[in-house]
Amino acid sequence: MTSVSIVGGSGYTGGELLRILLFHPRCTVQQVTSERFAGKFVHNAHPNLRKTSQLKFCAVAELEPCDLLFLCLPHGQSMGRIDEFCAIAPKIIDLSADFRLKDPRLYATYYGREHARTDLLDGFVYGLPELHRDAIKQADLVACPGCNATATILALSPLHRRALIESAVVEVKAGSSEGGNAASDASHHPERSGAVRSYKPTGHRHVAEMMQELPDITIHFSATSIEMVRGILATSHVFLNSDVAEKDIWKIYREAYAEERFIRIVKERTGIHRYPEPKLLAGTNYCDIGFERDAGSNRLVVISAIDNLMKGAAGQAVQCLNLMLGISESTGLEFPGLHPV
Amino acid sequence: MTSVSIVGGSGYTGGELLRILLFHPRCTVQQVTSERFAGKFVHNAHPNLRKTSQLKFCAVAELEPCDLLFLCLPHGQSMGRIDEFCAIAPKIIDLSADFRLKDPRLYATYYGREHARTDLLDGFVYGLPELHRDAIKQADLVACPGCNATATILALSPLHRRALIESAVVEVKAGSSEGGNAASDASHHPERSGAVRSYKPTGHRHVAEMMQELPDITIHFSATSIEMVRGILATSHVFLNSDVAEKDIWKIYREAYAEERFIRIVKERTGIHRYPEPKLLAGTNYCDIGFERDAGSNRLVVISAIDNLMKGAAGQAVQCLNLMLGISESTGLEFPGLHPV
Amino acid sequence: MTSVSIVGGSGYTGGELLRILLFHPRCTVQQVTSERFAGKFVHNAHPNLRKTSQLKFCAVAELEPCDLLFLCLPHGQSMGRIDEFCAIAPKIIDLSADFRLKDPRLYATYYGREHARTDLLDGFVYGLPELHRDAIKQADLVACPGCNATATILALSPLHRRALIESAVVEVKAGSSEGGNAASDASHHPERSGAVRSYKPTGHRHVAEMMQELPDITIHFSATSIEMVRGILATSHVFLNSDVAEKDIWKIYREAYAEERFIRIVKERTGIHRYPEPKLLAGTNYCDIGFERDAGSNRLVVISAIDNLMKGAAGQAVQCLNLMLGISESTGLEFPGLHPV
Amino acid sequence: MTSVSIVGGSGYTGGELLRILLFHPRCTVQQVTSERFAGKFVHNAHPNLRKTSQLKFCAVAELEPCDLLFLCLPHGQSMGRIDEFCAIAPKIIDLSADFRLKDPRLYATYYGREHARTDLLDGFVYGLPELHRDAIKQADLVACPGCNATATILALSPLHRRALIESAVVEVKAGSSEGGNAASDASHHPERSGAVRSYKPTGHRHVAEMMQELPDITIHFSATSIEMVRGILATSHVFLNSDVAEKDIWKIYREAYAEERFIRIVKERTGIHRYPEPKLLAGTNYCDIGFERDAGSNRLVVISAIDNLMKGAAGQAVQCLNLMLGISESTGLEFPGLHPV
Repeated sequence: MTSVSIVGGSGYTGGELLRILLFHPRCTVQQVTSERFAGKFVHNAHPNLRKTSQLKFCAVAELEPCDLLFLCLPHGQSMGRIDEFCAIAPKIIDLSADFRLKDPRLYATYYGREHARTDLLDGFVYGLPELHRDAIKQADLVACPGCNATATILALSPLHRRALIESAVVEVKAGSSEGGNAASDASHHPERSGAVRSYKPTGHRHVAEMMQELPDITIHFSATSIEMVRGILATSHVFLNSDVAEKDIWKIYREAYAEERFIRIVKERTGIHRYPEPKLLAGTNYCDIGFERDAGSNRLVVISAIDNLMKGAAGQAVQCLNLMLGISESTGLEFPGLHPV
Repeated sequence: MTSVSIVGGSGYTGGELLRILLFHPRCTVQQVTSERFAGKFVHNAHPNLRKTSQLKFCAVAELEPCDLLFLCLPHGQSMGRIDEFCAIAPKIIDLSADFRLKDPRLYATYYGREHARTDLLDGFVYGLPELHRDAIKQADLVACPGCNATATILALSPLHRRALIESAVVEVKAGSSEGGNAASDASHHPERSGAVRSYKPTGHRHVAEMMQELPDITIHFSATSIEMVRGILATSHVFLNSDVAEKDIWKIYREAYAEERFIRIVKERTGIHRYPEPKLLAGTNYCDIGFERDAGSNRLVVISAIDNLMKGAAGQAVQCLNLMLGISESTGLEFPGLHPV
Repeated sequence: MTSVSIVGGSGYTGGELLRILLFHPRCTVQQVTSERFAGKFVHNAHPNLRKTSQLKFCAVAELEPCDLLFLCLPHGQSMGRIDEFCAIAPKIIDLSADFRLKDPRLYATYYGREHARTDLLDGFVYGLPELHRDAIKQADLVACPGCNATATILALSPLHRRALIESAVVEVKAGSSEGGNAASDASHHPERSGAVRSYKPTGHRHVAEMMQELPDITIHFSATSIEMVRGILATSHVFLNSDVAEKDIWKIYREAYAEERFIRIVKERTGIHRYPEPKLLAGTNYCDIGFERDAGSNRLVVISAIDNLMKGAAGQAVQCLNLMLGISESTGLEFPGLHPV
Repeated sequence: MTSVSIVGGSGYTGGELLRILLFHPRCTVQQVTSERFAGKFVHNAHPNLRKTSQLKFCAVAELEPCDLLFLCLPHGQSMGRIDEFCAIAPKIIDLSADFRLKDPRLYATYYGREHARTDLLDGFVYGLPELHRDAIKQADLVACPGCNATATILALSPLHRRALIESAVVEVKAGSSEGGNAASDASHHPERSGAVRSYKPTGHRHVAEMMQELPDITIHFSATSIEMVRGILATSHVFLNSDVAEKDIWKIYREAYAEERFIRIVKERTGIHRYPEPKLLAGTNYCDIGFERDAGSNRLVVISAIDNLMKGAAGQAVQCLNLMLGISESTGLEFPGLHPV
């Protein structure tokens, strides 16, 4: 059994990690930290875990050595305390944005400050298994991708690898859990319920990750908040630089993802679920991908959906863990999702 | 033209008052106060009023004399400053709970403190036009009912007046705007969206108003928060003390409310809208009432619906204003509601 | 491995059964029937099962012998074809209403027609494990309870067993999946979204089950549809026939349910999740139960929540299956639910 | 008083027309047709109109001469019966798609059949007042724009007029009422609630209108259905052909729309309502428009929001009516919208 601990475990991402890991057959959750909830049962923050675990939160200062540490701290905190955490565990999976970008200039541009630990940037592997599986298997340090970046990169990567993309306009529709568990005016129910609200028309930080993983193409990105708790739907308007027929696009995606356990190509001829939908993915680690070829132009519309807290955060982190442990990639991640929900 | 000002105008109730009064043919909105928004346009707090009004918020200290003052302050504040407000306007409509109860002991029991101005309790008329129309017409001081109390009292009053009620169990389902515009953990969208959450199983403060207006019967009351922004649905299980046939109940309600502009008896034989639904009432001043007779017992289920911000607050306040001005009761309140919404 | 087949597997309940059983370590799903989808992959009806199963629907006529048959047919169909099904499998779990009631007169009253197979009524065990565990273990024929009945009976049973209940008024708030997967005017999204709609103020069929399982008390029942897809919240206003203190009520519930794997007593002093909430239960087999004692009367408000498709249908059916197989009651039912969702 | 009748008045658009016209100070609603509801009160289809109107539906065959006829028939029916309708009223406002396009080839391409009345295409004015005000004032025949076209054309027109647009990618997020009032599998609440579902990634019919009104630029359009009943949010990624500073874009929009009663430029520096949101527009005839300049490219993101049933259908039709009557354009359309809702 691998002993794992979670730093910053009272948020939504920490809660999801806990939910998965408590049932993971190869791991034991040793400790979970929360300064605010220290001493209280984990179900005080995560009421779904009532009667599932008797674990209590502890303070970071109380952390004991373990095999692997998950970091779920607010952006900017992991890099300041990384030495402290490396002293606790030989392997670290960081779910914050701190170590995702290799280029410190990109970090400075998108996060508005200098990176504090540029010496470590090369040491972290970008934790997107479908693109960096082998590196993750060997890694001691993994930085998990942002949720919007995950949905977008997985949608575009097969085309990008074949150098078929001229440019792309990506519109992400995201649910409210993306903003975390702290209440604000924007998350106040009477204001947020039923809203469709432009969140980041330009300048979204996750674009930096897309630039890194999909180099040499231009991605125009916007994010809109919609009525949904969990989930992301990314609509990518891809402008192709050559005339690719729909059947060849099929082939490209199938070849890229046929062996991928968590990617499903969704393109039904009939029924109401012809394209990917995040509603079907709540609690799952899937990324569903579909597309439609615009008959009258060089545009291909690629649609991808994930659960932002799972494939966009905790699920993907456990997928990385499984790779690092050398076990089946889907261990603990078999939940197929609910229908309807 | 009657000059009116609104004290505490940045909240949801103040915003609704403003929305109605800006279009009221017999009133001019002179001033609206908000300490937090003082100096800013009203559309900063009420974005629906963009391009509708150039009015700015002012501080209470800047209030000038006017004909009538609406008080939309948090519970407990009106009674502390009532002399100040009476010096500004000869007529006052208070939308808080401070002057609703005649009996200071009832106030102390339900609000957990002594009433500060028991000398004024008799001076305020309980602003429920369907029950106290004549008194409101003569009144200088009106205390508008609570939203749950409005929905419940209007549902039960016709039966109560005929002494037909033995007891009643009332379950109110309420939307999130009832809690006001301040964000909290409970109103955080990921937690509140899609929730059905027991809010006050027992001991709700509005019960005090029901006891006052429907004396000599026992009302067991519970409130549950559901996914909805505006609206209240009250299901009243009325236990009758004599065997009344359905057709007689019809007659009782029709006689009680046939002339009431804002009460509609809803009881369709077919279709999907056979009973009252708050969804149809958003923005309106209606109270819709329906019922079903339990064939196997002395139970009558009475269903009543209102918009908590309208008939449950601002709309009813304007209805009182109209009565006090001696004009048509529905002036400014003609909006019929949207379908679908 | 036990071979099981599902009759009527294209509906929501059949889909949930399939979702659970495909991951059940002791069962193999042999066949799933749907006349409409015969020949198509199960993911055509249940898109969450994409990449999870290559099973195809077949017609009932194609059913082969198996160890146990789940019946998910519309009410009224199981009893007409029960001989046919008994010839296919020695054990049957019926999820319809056909064999729930022991008393054919009760059936006739609530379902408006004579029961076609009164000879079999005694043969079926009412599949509520918390009340009939031993009988279910021995049973060949099990009739699973209705979802409203499950939530209500589990809430009231501990008090009923001690003869503490004088009467009860029960208000159920239910989500839209309760109505099944057939579109109708009432389920049309613009009409149903955000609605709170009185569904059955009186005369609900599930009352018959409550009368059977909780004899000698009067239950006044109403059901209201609210904005929610999955879930039931039952608020039971219990009128006690003696003065029981809150701490004794605690004791009664703890004694009744301490050993129950799927019942959680929820009564927190702080936080926003102080009472049961169906939102936390989507996909789980839990029944959460809480309560509040009315200080001023003999009323106790008991609040219970379930997922109508799980503890209210498919999950409870698998719980019964586990009992019939003599294995751990929670096999295949460990999913703890999502937060937030 | 102008006498108007509505053909096809039982749908959502017809209901909205009726709601507005019943309160319109210069019109009398003479007749409303519905074959299905003929003989029944209008509140049978439009429950919000209870106690507002005693009007009954009639059959088309019963229509009597009137001053102006609104046609709210399904697409394809107006053109087949237009002679019949022209015999009833000298002025016609058609809300279907039949007479929107001037070029019959465009019609054939997007609607998949030949236009039946090409002789009349030039006679109809495209009913977008902000672009064709003078023509509408003179018109006897008006064809009201599609809702997606309205939101997109109003967003892009000021830039288009100055020949600043190279191309645009437009993503529309739409609510469920856009699909009309007929229930279907796609509109079934358990499937539609909380969904974000790609509706028309390419080939949407409203693109034809955009091509007509915004000639010589390429518009890539996609539509996505989201959880919302009313409303459209269009996010237009505009690629500019020259470097225009943000302050100049401000100027362009202000000059274009400063005098427009129903267009509001929304671009706040603070608060949560910094961009247009359809949630604020339910029941109003506004089109709110905002934008953000992408600092790193030639992209301008323009955000526009409308109520699809109002500015996208019935409201805009009444705006045209007002122009045709030579009265104030906002007559009957003053409702400012609700907040929150």
